[in-house]
Amino acid sequence: MNLKTVLILLGLALATIFALICVLLTRERTPRTCQHLPPEQEEMEDGQSLVFADLSPEELSQVVRYLQGHLGVPLVEASRAKPSDNCIASVDVQVPGKAEVLRFLDGAGARPRREALAVLYFGNQPDPNITEYVVGPLPTPAYHRDVTVQKYGGKVPYHRRPTLAVEYKQIGEFLKSQAFPSAPAFMQQNVSGFFVHPVGLEVLVDHSSLDISQWAVSRVFYNGQYYRDMAQLESAYVQGRISVEKVRKAPWDGDFSSMKPRAAPAALFPVQFEPQGPRYSVRNNHVLFQGWSFAFGMSVSAGLRLFDIRHRGERVAYEISVQEALSVYGSNCPAGMSTRYMDGSFGLGRYTSPLVRGVDCPYSATYVDTHSLSASLRPQRRKASLCIFEQNLGSPLRRHYSNLQSLYYGGLVNSALVIRSIATVGNYDYVWDFIFYQNGAMEGKVQATGYPSSSFLHGDGLRYGNRLWEHTLGTIHTHFVNYKVDLDVGGVKNSLVAHDMAFEMTRAPWNPEQQIERPRLTKKVLDTEDQAAFRLQSKMPRYVYFAANSKNKWGHQRGYRIQITSFAGDHIPEGSSMERAISWARYQLAVTRRKEEEPTSTSIYNQNDPWTPTVAFADFINNETITNEDLVAWITAGFLHIPHSEDIPNTVTVGNSVGFLLRPYNYYDLDPSIYSHDGVFFTSEQDLTACEINPLACLPKAASCLPNFPPFTYDGFRNMSRL
Amino acid sequence: MNLKTVLILLGLALATIFALICVLLTRERTPRTCQHLPPEQEEMEDGQSLVFADLSPEELSQVVRYLQGHLGVPLVEASRAKPSDNCIASVDVQVPGKAEVLRFLDGAGARPRREALAVLYFGNQPDPNITEYVVGPLPTPAYHRDVTVQKYGGKVPYHRRPTLAVEYKQIGEFLKSQAFPSAPAFMQQNVSGFFVHPVGLEVLVDHSSLDISQWAVSRVFYNGQYYRDMAQLESAYVQGRISVEKVRKAPWDGDFSSMKPRAAPAALFPVQFEPQGPRYSVRNNHVLFQGWSFAFGMSVSAGLRLFDIRHRGERVAYEISVQEALSVYGSNCPAGMSTRYMDGSFGLGRYTSPLVRGVDCPYSATYVDTHSLSASLRPQRRKASLCIFEQNLGSPLRRHYSNLQSLYYGGLVNSALVIRSIATVGNYDYVWDFIFYQNGAMEGKVQATGYPSSSFLHGDGLRYGNRLWEHTLGTIHTHFVNYKVDLDVGGVKNSLVAHDMAFEMTRAPWNPEQQIERPRLTKKVLDTEDQAAFRLQSKMPRYVYFAANSKNKWGHQRGYRIQITSFAGDHIPEGSSMERAISWARYQLAVTRRKEEEPTSTSIYNQNDPWTPTVAFADFINNETITNEDLVAWITAGFLHIPHSEDIPNTVTVGNSVGFLLRPYNYYDLDPSIYSHDGVFFTSEQDLTACEINPLACLPKAASCLPNFPPFTYDGFRNMSRL
Repeated sequence: MNLKTVLILLGLALATIFALICVLLTRERTPRTCQHLPPEQEEMEDGQSLVFADLSPEELSQVVRYLQGHLGVPLVEASRAKPSDNCIASVDVQVPGKAEVLRFLDGAGARPRREALAVLYFGNQPDPNITEYVVGPLPTPAYHRDVTVQKYGGKVPYHRRPTLAVEYKQIGEFLKSQAFPSAPAFMQQNVSGFFVHPVGLEVLVDHSSLDISQWAVSRVFYNGQYYRDMAQLESAYVQGRISVEKVRKAPWDGDFSSMKPRAAPAALFPVQFEPQGPRYSVRNNHVLFQGWSFAFGMSVSAGLRLFDIRHRGERVAYEISVQEALSVYGSNCPAGMSTRYMDGSFGLGRYTSPLVRGVDCPYSATYVDTHSLSASLRPQRRKASLCIFEQNLGSPLRRHYSNLQSLYYGGLVNSALVIRSIATVGNYDYVWDFIFYQNGAMEGKVQATGYPSSSFLHGDGLRYGNRLWEHTLGTIHTHFVNYKVDLDVGGVKNSLVAHDMAFEMTRAPWNPEQQIERPRLTKKVLDTEDQAAFRLQSKMPRYVYFAANSKNKWGHQRGYRIQITSFAGDHIPEGSSMERAISWARYQLAVTRRKEEEPTSTSIYNQNDPWTPTVAFADFINNETITNEDLVAWITAGFLHIPHSEDIPNTVTVGNSVGFLLRPYNYYDLDPSIYSHDGVFFTSEQDLTACEINPLACLPKAASCLPNFPPFTYDGFRNMSRL
Repeated sequence: MNLKTVLILLGLALATIFALICVLLTRERTPRTCQHLPPEQEEMEDGQSLVFADLSPEELSQVVRYLQGHLGVPLVEASRAKPSDNCIASVDVQVPGKAEVLRFLDGAGARPRREALAVLYFGNQPDPNITEYVVGPLPTPAYHRDVTVQKYGGKVPYHRRPTLAVEYKQIGEFLKSQAFPSAPAFMQQNVSGFFVHPVGLEVLVDHSSLDISQWAVSRVFYNGQYYRDMAQLESAYVQGRISVEKVRKAPWDGDFSSMKPRAAPAALFPVQFEPQGPRYSVRNNHVLFQGWSFAFGMSVSAGLRLFDIRHRGERVAYEISVQEALSVYGSNCPAGMSTRYMDGSFGLGRYTSPLVRGVDCPYSATYVDTHSLSASLRPQRRKASLCIFEQNLGSPLRRHYSNLQSLYYGGLVNSALVIRSIATVGNYDYVWDFIFYQNGAMEGKVQATGYPSSSFLHGDGLRYGNRLWEHTLGTIHTHFVNYKVDLDVGGVKNSLVAHDMAFEMTRAPWNPEQQIERPRLTKKVLDTEDQAAFRLQSKMPRYVYFAANSKNKWGHQRGYRIQITSFAGDHIPEGSSMERAISWARYQLAVTRRKEEEPTSTSIYNQNDPWTPTVAFADFINNETITNEDLVAWITAGFLHIPHSEDIPNTVTVGNSVGFLLRPYNYYDLDPSIYSHDGVFFTSEQDLTACEINPLACLPKAASCLPNFPPFTYDGFRNMSRL
């Protein structure tokens, strides 16, 4: 090889290198549009919203340490406690009083003291009871105050306590070691199952005694017949006096009830990406999006809740929170027909579900861990227990195409912020959404999915539902959810106003002999709590709104309208001995004066003693005047669920979605979405392909930014709250 | 430079080239995931669905040519016609009879003849009238048949004709040249405006004469006062006897009513992309998506309509179509209080709006042109008049997280197919969606947006709405839409069944002394049309479904349930002389026997003579038995709209969305979404980061496929239908 040849080769090599680098650079050329832009409003990081924040792990630990040191009794770790022990059931933040918070947020008031609310089960006391303490100030507690009597008007008896997970385990052990061995032949069927695999055996255990050794079987039910105890069942079985349905043992994988896909993965579903990064920010418990800001928290019992919700800087609501999720079942089996689930008692926050990227929320959503302390002495990290994302809903928020006189098009895509958590309380999964729209509207929505409850099909079972599988009766039930919506429209003092339509007869304008029916606007101030309590199945005025003390530019009271979507069944007859425990469900909407003494529409103690409700919502409604007062709207939405074959394996969310909208009504002088950066307007004279004129024309370039999705991870099977 | 140095350099260069190629290849390594995968079901291109197809431009031209040659009268181009001319108002496909179509689709029947329906205005005849002809067979027409009497029981008088665009223009010219010059001083105010810029002047023109020169002003209204004519108004004005509100001339750009964004574009909103391409196919008028298939068409009067909707190969509905969009207004101005818009008469298909990528539908949607012939002798291409896309709704269709016994997660993202068109009829834009879910549910939805109608604010105007701007009264009105849903559940013969709940008292299962209230299932076959007609404000059974003649595996009648979302006001008192013209709006749901003679719930001729309705839906309901018959559900949804300041500039879609769901109810043996390719299932034992085990783990890789969006184009300002 001579030098010349080598030099030529070298030349070619250098040219190749140059060409390759060019190719690479061309590909690299990140267009400026690919830069992630920060959300436009930069948060003033003043930590104001921390006043609503859940307790941190450190704070939780401090409270536990304080209680261990200052109650004068030993506290057993609740995950190992016997009913006759003392233990901590839960510790949560004690949100300060509204007046104090508002002085801090809006005025010159000092930052309220940070306090905790601890729920203690005192089983190891002469008079076993549940006691609630306010503990403070954090981070270094120095006092605790028993608030039980103040909150509930008396001591809370021990039997009202929500059952600890450990007690379910203890009942299971009792059955296995004490009850089932007395029916050895019968139990040899050894069939197990869950949710939609009922086997027909139901056992009533009297676990009222705090001494586990005193627990006893009160009664046994098998396939339509009652027995005194397992021994009697055994004897009937051995004597061949009972027909045993041949129930195939539910296989390990759940068989028909498995959620395993029956088809292999194929082309991926559409996914959303943010060409220039997220347009919202999440700092601590504070979220900013377009004109919106709010604080969030996760209550052990009630789950996701929001505070200090503002639009364009002005507070619209002080608190929006879930209060309860109720289900009332019918069946011809004893457990089924007795079921009245009040899921708040189990804990919508306690059983918040670790969210799965790409299914539970969009893949690129922001996933937030929260912390809690429940039935334990140690704080627990709830992984990915809520998600926050912007969702392009794929349709216009508004649009108009003018084909009349001038030719133009104007529109705005409907892209909204969603904050979501999903609570899995046993069989059901509730998807809780709060949605913030660019026009100042806000939505609360719940979708139900998960497994249906079921009974073993026998006798006249079909009076109570549909048959879902060989031995499975899908039992009829209702779903009800209750929200607290503490609106503050243009200040805390509001009135409730109803607008609707009525027809009036009038002369036809051009022809006085003719009569026409003319719609007119009807207006009514609903000035008492009784007038503002709308029964579940009653006709409600079509526009009901919280009216401010101030007016918009056109002289109308500024307002926010409440619009409810619900397909509710009946809750339960009012004559029922347990109705008062769920009396919030009497009303699709009830507006009451806001009181610190009426913080929630129910209590976690209502589930286990509904006959003596610890909180009875009906008592809130006592005809007080509600004009120009601080008001709360209690909203109930729900649907009747008659399970059908398509509920196997799971209930779908489509059609099982209810909730409410809060919509500005003469609140602004014009639609605030006109200030959105996403607006589009063009006329027939413009060059629509120019990115400067038409932002939509920029989209193909921006969309060529490589989406950057993090690898899939899931931590949901470690350190979770087991039911 | 010696050879050794050069060789070393060459060696380095080759190494560099190798490295660069490696880098490039790594980047290039188009993961197989980036390949666009074809939709799984490959369509059998047998053209069956063409039996429902709109007429092609060639077919339309053939019909026109045939009519020109065979009616024996000259036909004037409708865009230039005088009322005293003959012209073609519209030509649309005449869908063959259902029996014939089903024989073709399902059996050995021949392909039905292709026919057109032509609507002719005969103004140039001794007895002016509207005549409808069926013209066929296409593509080479050989016959025409006058079907007017057969369809409507008599001739259709000429005055019932929907007004042609040209006649609006002629009225405008009459005002300008004949009427306004008699009030020269008054008209010097020269104020113009639209929709939300009322100026207070309303003029009633008697254009009943076919001779334009005979047209006359019947009456004039200005700012609360009536005048005989413009001359009387002029004289009152000149004498200073009327107060003229100083209305600022609406500026060219619309001022406050302009949809021009008030903020500059910033970071782009999230967009959706399809990593492996669209998962649906559109061929001719046929769409395939997951288990779904259907044909679509665009009727001149009723807009988007679907036929032969099948899930998993089996027909669920024969036809789903919009019938009418109605608005009834109140006001203290004559035009406002007389307004009862029946938009089908204007033409929901005629005024279908060219869709804008990225706002009206997702950017990457499939946009379809359609063709029509209306008020013209030439077919017209309606550009991007509908769009089809898959939408990932950002939430699970179903999911369950098991924290009880075994630990697992199963779920399915809710990704659905949407077909959409938007009709802009004057001020309002109706977004019409049909949505297909993976669980076999289907939704019909309409969202309302666009400009509100308004009146000039004067006197007691606030009895009829809210003030929206200086002189603008947003007038109270209702929105109603009616759908025809011709379900065929497991065959054409169906019955209508209602399921609901009731409480019964029973002994508490474990404690016979105690009573409990138990929900039970109530069942009722609704066996006559009268029983199946549910008044608008009445309480409806919570489950109403079309039941098949066949049963599912569990012995239940296979069914599809109808679930309606509506916030309707009252339609109009039944005593009204025009009520029968809109009597479909009496019922939220009415189920009738399907008849070829009852193809639509209204007529385009009802608008201009509502006192003698050409079709009166109430007559369809005559107590015929409806068990085991071919049935049609007529669904009405709507909402009351009291315009408020936030309706300026446009009404938003949030909260103004109504419609219905069709949901399988014991139709399948289990939820068909279990066969979706998008299903996800994993247990605590699995490696969730492995793409083979967990399809979600494949997503980041697939999402690194560069989205490829076409450049923005818009053709909506050329050759459009002007109102």
